[in-house]
Amino acid sequence: MARKTIVGVMGPGQPNAWELSNAQALGVSIAQHGWVLLTGGRAAGVMDAASRSARQAGGTVVGILPGDDAAEASEFVDIAIITDMGSARNNINVLSSDVVIACGMGPGTASEVALALKAGKSVILLTDHEESKRFFSVLKPGSVLLAETAAEAIELAKGLLEKQLQKNNVQ
Amino acid sequence: MARKTIVGVMGPGQPNAWELSNAQALGVSIAQHGWVLLTGGRAAGVMDAASRSARQAGGTVVGILPGDDAAEASEFVDIAIITDMGSARNNINVLSSDVVIACGMGPGTASEVALALKAGKSVILLTDHEESKRFFSVLKPGSVLLAETAAEAIELAKGLLEKQLQKNNVQ
Amino acid sequence: MARKTIVGVMGPGQPNAWELSNAQALGVSIAQHGWVLLTGGRAAGVMDAASRSARQAGGTVVGILPGDDAAEASEFVDIAIITDMGSARNNINVLSSDVVIACGMGPGTASEVALALKAGKSVILLTDHEESKRFFSVLKPGSVLLAETAAEAIELAKGLLEKQLQKNNVQ
Amino acid sequence: MARKTIVGVMGPGQPNAWELSNAQALGVSIAQHGWVLLTGGRAAGVMDAASRSARQAGGTVVGILPGDDAAEASEFVDIAIITDMGSARNNINVLSSDVVIACGMGPGTASEVALALKAGKSVILLTDHEESKRFFSVLKPGSVLLAETAAEAIELAKGLLEKQLQKNNVQ
Repeated sequence: MARKTIVGVMGPGQPNAWELSNAQALGVSIAQHGWVLLTGGRAAGVMDAASRSARQAGGTVVGILPGDDAAEASEFVDIAIITDMGSARNNINVLSSDVVIACGMGPGTASEVALALKAGKSVILLTDHEESKRFFSVLKPGSVLLAETAAEAIELAKGLLEKQLQKNNVQ
Repeated sequence: MARKTIVGVMGPGQPNAWELSNAQALGVSIAQHGWVLLTGGRAAGVMDAASRSARQAGGTVVGILPGDDAAEASEFVDIAIITDMGSARNNINVLSSDVVIACGMGPGTASEVALALKAGKSVILLTDHEESKRFFSVLKPGSVLLAETAAEAIELAKGLLEKQLQKNNVQ
Repeated sequence: MARKTIVGVMGPGQPNAWELSNAQALGVSIAQHGWVLLTGGRAAGVMDAASRSARQAGGTVVGILPGDDAAEASEFVDIAIITDMGSARNNINVLSSDVVIACGMGPGTASEVALALKAGKSVILLTDHEESKRFFSVLKPGSVLLAETAAEAIELAKGLLEKQLQKNNVQ
Repeated sequence: MARKTIVGVMGPGQPNAWELSNAQALGVSIAQHGWVLLTGGRAAGVMDAASRSARQAGGTVVGILPGDDAAEASEFVDIAIITDMGSARNNINVLSSDVVIACGMGPGTASEVALALKAGKSVILLTDHEESKRFFSVLKPGSVLLAETAAEAIELAKGLLEKQLQKNNVQ
């Protein structure tokens, strides 16, 4: 079994400067760890920034697009999955990610965090949106991990992946 | 044009007593106003309670089911839409509802609120989950309406429907 | 359990005169039997014609729309389900229908027939497209019923519904 | 723009020997051309055989899974996209493929061919199912290309990719 580890980075199309910088750092680090980066695929915001930096660091980028045309994809997406199902594709984003990192916050990102929790997944929140941290932490205690920096988020991702590995080995 | 007005009631499968009681009150009132009730369709929690009371008050109930079999439907669903797309059907729930009311809170409900806001819709929150009220209110200011009682939620729904009517008449 | 029986009529957006006339006859008959009519919902072709005649005969019409806006719905749809998932909604059309009738043929209709057969459902073909009759009949022998007229299609639908009823009663 | 070319191979879970052998030959050839192989992802039939041979020839394999768990994936899938949307994922299969090859025939494969034609795509049929060739050829004349061997299918795929390249360069 050589299925590749996929780390999903979810974030808004119109991020602030700190979120953008985190997206770039995540993309680089995900590529350096040999993980595949998965995003919502569009040529905007966190999706585009993480994809660009992952590509430039030699990584592979999967983009799960909401529309019916690859033309909307970030130019840094290697593998474009065209869903034509709008925001319903957010569920595919989180189901397909071995680890989900929310980088920033917005309505779309919030839906992805909630869908991941609904699916029984842990989520790493890398955001300065205080109300979101409080909300999701009480919504599903124990499943929401808070990171202050991209480096912390990557460390948390490593921990989650190790736990999954142990669980699979035991089974 | 006689398309029926659809009011969606979203809520957890395992609600507390106050949420259950609100779900029942919403179902009755939605039926009495001549609106169609839309829920996630399952025989559990808020979905089942609202469906039962709407049916008993003479209303029509649409259930948008996550699985591939009508057998999972609440017995009070009149029209079962079978999606076989799991939580991705949450997006259909909110897109199909002229007004979205969240009755209680949980990961699935949170995803529906977030997806509704992402789609540009207003959402009525009828919940005692304080962190959710704070979170969604700052996530999309002006689009989240807070209700303390089922009656208040229905009044807010009326207001939203009137606004939509005016907007459509102007166009 | 008072869930309503749903009969789905699938057909092209640009039908010929015979297909249009069949769509109208099916709509009337479905309404007269007290069944809910389900179509792909758009204001075109077979969908629109069946919806119009079912409405005029006092029936209820559910439209499963591919786009993200009720504005694309036939004006004869009572209950508009907005999926925003393009042709992937074709699977919802067939899963939600207790009986599937293909009225005419085209790429979209062919996908619905194939998806119904894949889901283990019987399909009634009311079409003069000879190659489609031959193809689907050999693709899943025993699951494809051929009708020459709308009246024959309705008789076949009745037979399928009775079989389902017997099966459910035995269980 | 370095987005990778994706060639989708669609086929039944229980193929005959000739179909299996074609699936293997397609997988090898797709990998040798540097294209990404996309399949429905399951550990069965044409999907598994094409994935295995593409992997062994050094290629990259994307699997679009119908269920909610990577455990159902072929062990030769590198990148597992988990949709949890059953047969509705067939639309994603064809939309995401720059070229669609049907290797064998069955209800699921037929739905993919029909959905591809509905989306305006050309489809290469590599099958000895005579009724399917006749049906799809008359369903959308000019969009269905018939191959007798895997090598012919690959030549047709090259031709379609060149046309797409020319079209994109002109725009």
